[in-house]
Order: sequence, then C-alpha cells, then structure tokens
Amino acid sequence: MKGDLRYMRRAVTLAQKGLGRTAPNPPVGAVVVKDGRTVGEGFHPGAGLPHAEVFALNSAGDDAKGATLYVTLEPCSHYGRTPPCVNAVMEAGIARVVVGSIDPNPIVAGRGIRTLRENGVKVVVGVGKKETDRLISWYTPWMERKRPFVIAKAAMTLDGKIAAPSGDSKWISSEASRLYVHELRNHVDAILVGVGTVLSDDPLLTCRIQGGRNPLRVIIDPRYVVPEGAKCLGNRAVVFTAKDPLSRPEIIESGVKVIRLEKGKDERFLWENILSILGGMGLHSVLVEGGSAILSSLIQSRLFDELRIFVAPKLLGGGIPLVCWEPPETIAESLHLVISEARTIGSDVLITAHLEE
Amino acid sequence: MKGDLRYMRRAVTLAQKGLGRTAPNPPVGAVVVKDGRTVGEGFHPGAGLPHAEVFALNSAGDDAKGATLYVTLEPCSHYGRTPPCVNAVMEAGIARVVVGSIDPNPIVAGRGIRTLRENGVKVVVGVGKKETDRLISWYTPWMERKRPFVIAKAAMTLDGKIAAPSGDSKWISSEASRLYVHELRNHVDAILVGVGTVLSDDPLLTCRIQGGRNPLRVIIDPRYVVPEGAKCLGNRAVVFTAKDPLSRPEIIESGVKVIRLEKGKDERFLWENILSILGGMGLHSVLVEGGSAILSSLIQSRLFDELRIFVAPKLLGGGIPLVCWEPPETIAESLHLVISEARTIGSDVLITAHLEE
Repeated sequence: MKGDLRYMRRAVTLAQKGLGRTAPNPPVGAVVVKDGRTVGEGFHPGAGLPHAEVFALNSAGDDAKGATLYVTLEPCSHYGRTPPCVNAVMEAGIARVVVGSIDPNPIVAGRGIRTLRENGVKVVVGVGKKETDRLISWYTPWMERKRPFVIAKAAMTLDGKIAAPSGDSKWISSEASRLYVHELRNHVDAILVGVGTVLSDDPLLTCRIQGGRNPLRVIIDPRYVVPEGAKCLGNRAVVFTAKDPLSRPEIIESGVKVIRLEKGKDERFLWENILSILGGMGLHSVLVEGGSAILSSLIQSRLFDELRIFVAPKLLGGGIPLVCWEPPETIAESLHLVISEARTIGSDVLITAHLEE
Repeated sequence: MKGDLRYMRRAVTLAQKGLGRTAPNPPVGAVVVKDGRTVGEGFHPGAGLPHAEVFALNSAGDDAKGATLYVTLEPCSHYGRTPPCVNAVMEAGIARVVVGSIDPNPIVAGRGIRTLRENGVKVVVGVGKKETDRLISWYTPWMERKRPFVIAKAAMTLDGKIAAPSGDSKWISSEASRLYVHELRNHVDAILVGVGTVLSDDPLLTCRIQGGRNPLRVIIDPRYVVPEGAKCLGNRAVVFTAKDPLSRPEIIESGVKVIRLEKGKDERFLWENILSILGGMGLHSVLVEGGSAILSSLIQSRLFDELRIFVAPKLLGGGIPLVCWEPPETIAESLHLVISEARTIGSDVLITAHLEE
C-alpha cells in the first residue's frame, strides 16, 4: 500500500537504536499508523525489556484499534522472557500488520504471521525486506550457526604492513577511518584481540563516540600473561587461556571472566571452540582487531565472515605484515576472497571482502 | 557560445586517437564548424605529420571561410617540422578560433593566440579546459621538466605481495585489470622493467588490444645479462647497462638501442639519469611495470608521478613484497602518499596515488 515502505524505513531507523544492545535478541523497530498519521513508535532496547511492538502499541494507546502496525521483524509467537507479541497485537485491535523480515528463529519462523492471519489480522510480508534483512545480518547467521558473525578489521599501509618493525602503528589510518572503527565498535557485541596487542599497545578497546556503549572485550591469552592492570580489563572482559584461571586470583577478583580452553595440536586454540563459546554467550557479532598472529590464524581457519581492511596511502618498505603463514607455491593456491565493497574513508580506502562461496 | 563545449568535446575525442603516437608532440584534435554544421575534422597522427588544424582545414576546404575552428591546444606559431598552424588558419579564412588549452611549450605559450588576434581572428580560450588539459597531462610536465611522466604500476594481493616465493605471479589481478593495463600500454610512450622481470617471466611487454600499438620497451640491466632471444627485445627496445654496449654485439645487431650509464654510489643507476635520457628522447610518459627492486628504488627516489596499484582479493601469507627497503622506526616517518582515485576493476580495486605535495 502507498506509504508502506516509508513507514517501514522509519521502523528500521528506530530499530537501529538497539544495534549492539539487544543480544541475544535481534534489533527490531515498530511504527503504528492510523488514517495516515503515526500514532505510536518503539524499538527493542535490550534483552529482558519489552519488544518493539509493545513500546509502539503502548504509545499508540486506543489509537491502535483498527490501525496498521509496521514491524521490521515478524512478531514473536512464543513465551520467552516476555509474553508473545502477537497476543499484544491482537489485544490492541490492530487491523493490519506489515512485516519486513520473517524471524529466522526456528521457534518463530512464520508462526507469528500464521497466528495473526488465523485471528483475522491482515498481514503483508517483505516490505523493505532488503533493509530489514540488513538489520538482522548478524542475528540470522548466529541463529543458524550458533556462532557470532566475525568481522576481522585491520589498518595497513599500501605495502601491506600493520606496524613498523618497532611495533609502532600510530597512526596508519586517517582520523575518519578511526572514527568509523568506533562506530563499528558501538554496534558489535564484542571486540577480540590477542594478548600481544594488549602487551604492546595496552589499548582501551572502548567505543569513544558520543552515546556509544562499549562492547564486551575478549582477549586470547593461552599463556595467561595479561597484565593485571591492562586498560581493556575494565568491566565486561573475557580472557581465554590454557592455564588454570584460578592460578591468578587477582584477575578473577577484578571481575574478568576467565575461560579455560584446550589448545589444538598446533599449540593454538581452535577458532571453532572460541566462536562456539562466544555464540553460546548470545553474542551475534565479534570484531577481531588483531594483531597479525590472531588475524593470520583466524583467516587460515576460514571462520570469518568479513575482512575490513583500511588501506592507508603510506609505504613502510618493511615491518609487521597484515598476515603471515607458510605461503603456497603459486598464486592459484592463494586464499581467494571476493571484494564486496571498496570506498574511500578520509584519506584511506576501505576494502571489505569475504571468502569465495 | 552555445554548442562550443560540444564541438570541443568532439575535438578531444579526435585528439585521443593520437594518444601515445605523437611524441614529442602533444595529441591534438580539431573541428571546423560553419553555420552550425561540422565541415571538417582532424587530429595529429604523429610527429612529422601535419597538425590537427591542417587536417581539419583541408577536409573543410572552401567551407573554412568564415567558419569557427575548435582546437584542443593553441595553434603553433613557429616553424618546426611543419609550418606554423596560425598561418594555415588565417589563409583558410577562419573567422573565430575556440581553444581548449594554451600550449605549455615556451616557444608557443600564447604567441599563437596573440598572432591570430593581431590578424583579426576572434579567439576564445579555455573552453572544455578540464578535458583538454587532461589530454596533455603527460605532455605538460614533460615540457616543464624534460623528463617523462612516470606511472609505476603493480598488481598485488591484499597482503601486499606481487608474487609467490617461487616468483609465480600468474595471475594476481583479474582479466579486467589486465585489459586495463593493455589500454594503458596503448597510450604510454614506453614501458620500463628491470632485467629480473625479463629473466623470470620473459614477457612480451606488448599492447595486446585491437588497434593498439606497442610502446618502446626499456630494460634496466646494469650487468648486461638480458638474454639475446628475450621476447621484449623485438623492435623498439632500449637497454640501459653499466657495461660496454659493444661487449655483446649480438644485442646491438638485433636492433636494440643499448645505452651505457654510470652507476650511483649505491651501485644502482640514478633514476634522474634514466628519466633525463628518456625525456631527451622525447618520451612524454613511461609505465614502470616492476619488479619489486625497480619499484622500490623508483619509489625511494620519489621520481614518480603516479602509483597505480591493483589490489586483488587474494591472500598469500608470504612472498615477494610490493616494495622492500630499510623501514623507518615509526609510521610518521613512512613515505606519505595521497590517494587520487580508488575504484573497482573486475574483481580488484585499483588505487591511484601520488606523493604528498
């Protein structure tokens, strides 16, 4: 119907306010429209809190009777931490529901839509689907694979170095690129780094934009050598180690979650184990920020979904490479990727790539 | 005047037919228009042959009387290998001349325009200047510096390698990128490579597109070890060596031009010497195609105008780096460039960069 796409886009904008704050739930936005007038709006602000539909219906009040509800994701039909949204929709007297995407959660997966239709509510599905699908592009794979969507990010010089031989990397990329990373940090559920990065840079790994929130910090530290006072160990940090977590009680007592993991046969953790644990914690997305060893092992494991490489117009001539492993004899045997996007950010080029299908 | 820009663009299109074929002259195109009708067209096909204006005027014949001449570059006012074009313009009875760019050649540099005006011909300057300047973007710096415009080109993996450790580099970049290189070869006056590339790949270094022509091949070969049967030594090749050219008479006899050059204090040729000789040969542009050692020394010399790097979505993990030299301690001391363009070509990203001013 005329205007449907416009209202759905408004619902998408509302949903975006919840990006990175709703796990293990997806971000959802909703708008209630009656006689061409918006009478209610809402978005899901976080797990355990009411869903977007409930906020929108409450703000609409009696105006919801006979109105149209626009919702980016199919309303749920099951009792979870909150009662099913389809009940709230029917009780409010909504006459028509316009849905963007179907919920990939197998306990919903069309049941919400069916229940509404069986109860005489008119339902249209797929309006603005491209945008509503993008909203859940980290949630859908998590739901299917039970591991987070993995974005590996690095800033490198035009000759493929992520640091000078001294380890200095401040700054390879431009201010605009670094701001972009903080925007990304504001939306992902976790940031992951190797302990080498903590030891050499002692980074905060926080989101430093106004109104942003810090993702969970994950540190890969087989030898359990992370310094007690490391800045990234503030609240909400997880350390994966091969040692006994209790061997350093000061770390546990500081509120850090320490998870013991067996090493694989090459003395490294298996990425499938790490990601499976993070997925089990309900994390939809993780941003892997390096360094070179972590990036190399992650890329070799092929358990990443996206590479985002900032290429800065600088040449070092030597230094720490983006990745390093035993190279193949021929180009044909190299790891083949596909570039999904290339664009300039500040003075750099951001290349986004993924594995060949 | 209405239509001026349209006719100038046609003149630019005509001029482009001469790209890479006119050195030491610039490419020029011309159109004669009378009463809103094109009555003559021409372009400069090569040194020693008539200029664009003459072709256009000849094809217009008597229609040139009272007509407008559109010409991408100011008509020449001096006797060179051909008589001055301003004379031909006046003799043909042209009433108005529309010029794109002023000739940067100091023996013209506005004199052509002045002569026309002094003889009662109306002259408009700067129409379509952006496009006509681009047409001579290799000629202008050559005229000013007497050395060619230097484009360094390489195809690398996303981790900055131009070949596997075995030397294999077939193919890092996509077919579309390789086609683009042949288009570039069709327009530059020379291709330059190190003898290492000749020894490892034995490349043809030809332009393999329909209607294309081969640029001059330039081989940097201090030790004079280029194989007698190397494919790139076909007609029109120049070898720079530190040895006595006559020590290998078979090379000279095969028609190759061998130039002896002193080495600098680091046992390498000085780029300023090489480029000064190539400039003296009237070459406006040279495409430096590698390998790593040649690119590294050229870039360190800073005597390049543009880097064109094809970044292919492949990861090698090791191999031959784009460039290699003693790296600085910090990022701040790295060689700083500016990206002028980044765009996808086939499955790759082409990054064009130049030195910071």
